[in-house]
Amino acid sequence: MQNFELTILGCSSATPTSTRNPTAQLLNIAERFFLIDCGEGTQMQLRKYKVKFQRINHIFISHLHGDHFLGLMGLLSSMHLLGRTTDLHLYCPAELQEILEVQNKHSQTRLNYTIIYHHHKYINEDLLFEDEKVEVRALVMNHRIPCCGFIFREKPVTGNVSKEIIGRYRLTVEEILYLKKGSDLTLENGTVIPNREIVSNKTLPRSYAFCSDTIYLESLVPYLKDIDLLYHEATFLHEMLERAVATHHTTALQAGMIAQKANVKKLMIGHYSARYKDVEPLVEEAKKTFANTVPAIEGQSTVVEAIPVG
Amino acid sequence: MQNFELTILGCSSATPTSTRNPTAQLLNIAERFFLIDCGEGTQMQLRKYKVKFQRINHIFISHLHGDHFLGLMGLLSSMHLLGRTTDLHLYCPAELQEILEVQNKHSQTRLNYTIIYHHHKYINEDLLFEDEKVEVRALVMNHRIPCCGFIFREKPVTGNVSKEIIGRYRLTVEEILYLKKGSDLTLENGTVIPNREIVSNKTLPRSYAFCSDTIYLESLVPYLKDIDLLYHEATFLHEMLERAVATHHTTALQAGMIAQKANVKKLMIGHYSARYKDVEPLVEEAKKTFANTVPAIEGQSTVVEAIPVG
Repeated sequence: MQNFELTILGCSSATPTSTRNPTAQLLNIAERFFLIDCGEGTQMQLRKYKVKFQRINHIFISHLHGDHFLGLMGLLSSMHLLGRTTDLHLYCPAELQEILEVQNKHSQTRLNYTIIYHHHKYINEDLLFEDEKVEVRALVMNHRIPCCGFIFREKPVTGNVSKEIIGRYRLTVEEILYLKKGSDLTLENGTVIPNREIVSNKTLPRSYAFCSDTIYLESLVPYLKDIDLLYHEATFLHEMLERAVATHHTTALQAGMIAQKANVKKLMIGHYSARYKDVEPLVEEAKKTFANTVPAIEGQSTVVEAIPVG
Repeated sequence: MQNFELTILGCSSATPTSTRNPTAQLLNIAERFFLIDCGEGTQMQLRKYKVKFQRINHIFISHLHGDHFLGLMGLLSSMHLLGRTTDLHLYCPAELQEILEVQNKHSQTRLNYTIIYHHHKYINEDLLFEDEKVEVRALVMNHRIPCCGFIFREKPVTGNVSKEIIGRYRLTVEEILYLKKGSDLTLENGTVIPNREIVSNKTLPRSYAFCSDTIYLESLVPYLKDIDLLYHEATFLHEMLERAVATHHTTALQAGMIAQKANVKKLMIGHYSARYKDVEPLVEEAKKTFANTVPAIEGQSTVVEAIPVG
C-alpha cells in the first residue's frame, strides 16, 4: 500500500514559543515528499525528525508572512551545500522570487541546482502539480495578504490481479491493464467478471487539505467536501473572535464548523497563538462543532489510512 | 562588580546539525545586551536559554552569509509582535537593509519601532558604539564576501571610596570624584595618598573579540593584543587546510596561533564544520599552539572575571 502520511514540523502562529516552531509540514504521498510552508528552523526540524531533505522536490509556500517562509533561505542553502543538483519546484507568491534573489545576490550565492518557480495565481482548484499518482490544487484563503491553501489528492489507486486469476482466465496483458483501470471484464464467451472479485487492494483515493492562514471562510466548504484529513488553522479560542477577525484568523470553533459543513473525515487544528501554552482547550472547543478533531503536534506523524473499495 | 558574560546561542558553520545551530552569541557587559550574529533559529535559542530579548538594543551582523543573519528577520518580527517600541541599533553590511526592506514590503510589515542602521565601513578599529561603560570597534576579516569582526571593551571601571576613608580625610565631593578617576590625591598639607590604598574594587577593563569568518589573518594580531577572551572561528582541522583556504576559513591550529601571537588570555573556538560531530579534536589541535583553549558550546555562558588593579 502506498504511503499517505503527514508530519508536523511546526505548528505555532507568528511568534514561536520555546516548544513550538512556526508552520512547516511534510507530506509523503507514495514517496513524493511535499514540504508545505517553511517557517524559521524548518531545516533543523527536518534533521531532528530524520527526514532526508534532499528527497524534497516540491515546496509549497502559502504566503509571505515570516512564520511561513523564513526557513526557506537556509534550507535552500543547505541543500546546495550538501550537493544537491536536482531541480526544485517552488510553488509560491511571485514576490518570494525577489526576496530570494536579493539574498543570493548579496551573499554571492549561486545554487548548484535550479529553482523552478510556479507563482500562485490565486484561483481555486488551480492545478499546481500532477503526476501519475498525485495532484495538487490551490485553494484561495482570505488573509491580510494574498494567501493560498493546498489540496493534495491521490489519483485512483489501481489494484492487483493475482497470478492465480491471470492463469485461471488466461488473461492477456491488455485485459490485465483494462482490469486495473477498474472496469468489469467481459470474456469472449460473454461471461462478465465483476472487477471487485478479481482485483484486490484497490483503495479509495485519499486527500489532504491545508488551510492556513485565513479568516473564517465558508466559501471553502464546497472545495473541502469529503476530504480525508483537513488541516485548518485555529489561532484563537472563540472568545477571541474579535481579534481573530481583526487579524484575519479563524477560531477553533469555526475550524470545527468548516470541517462539519464539508463533511471531512478528520480535522487537525494548528497555528496556535503563543498565548495558549496548553492547546487542549482549542481542541475541546473545535470538538463542539466537529467531534473527530486532533491537534497538530510537532514531530507527530498522521497516516491517512487507505479504505478498500467495495 | 559589573557583568561581562558571553552566552553561545549557536556555533555551527554554514550547515547546522541536529545539535548545533548557526552562529549567534549574546554578550552582556554591564547589562548592555549585545547580540552578535543572528543565524536561523536565534529567537528560539534566546527563548530556550531564557534571555529577555527585548533587552537587546544592539545587534552586530558580521556578514551576509545566511548562517550569520537568517534569524534576524524573525527576531525583528517577534520583537514587533511582542510590543517593542524602543529603537534598535543594527551594525551590519549596508546591503542587509535592502534584504530586510524587501521582505517587510512583501509581508506588508511595518515595525512599531525604528531600526537605526550603522553600515559597516570595513575599517579596523572603526568605533561602532560607545557609552560610559563600553566601546565596540570593528575588525576587518578576510572572507569570501566583506566581513567584520568586533572588539568589545569595558571602559576603565572606577573604584569605590569607603565612608570610613571619606570621614577620616574629610574628603570633598570633588576630591572623591578625582580619586575615582584613578589619580593619587595630594592633601593640603602636602601628604600624598596613593590611589590604590584608598580606592577599592578597581578592576582592569575587560575585553572580548569576535573573529568569524576569516581566512588565517596574521594582520589581526596587533588589534587582538592582550584580549581577555578571543572567539575565533576554527571551521576545520589543519589536515583540511586546503579546503580552509579555498573557503576562506581558519583551522583550529591556526586559531591557536593567532591567540598565541596576540597573547590573549583565553581562546574560544567555534563555527565548526558539520563534519565534526565531536569537537574535541578541534580543541586538542588548537591547544597545541595555545593551551588555554575552550570550545564554544551552545547554551554555555562564559564569565570574563574582573582582575583587581594593583
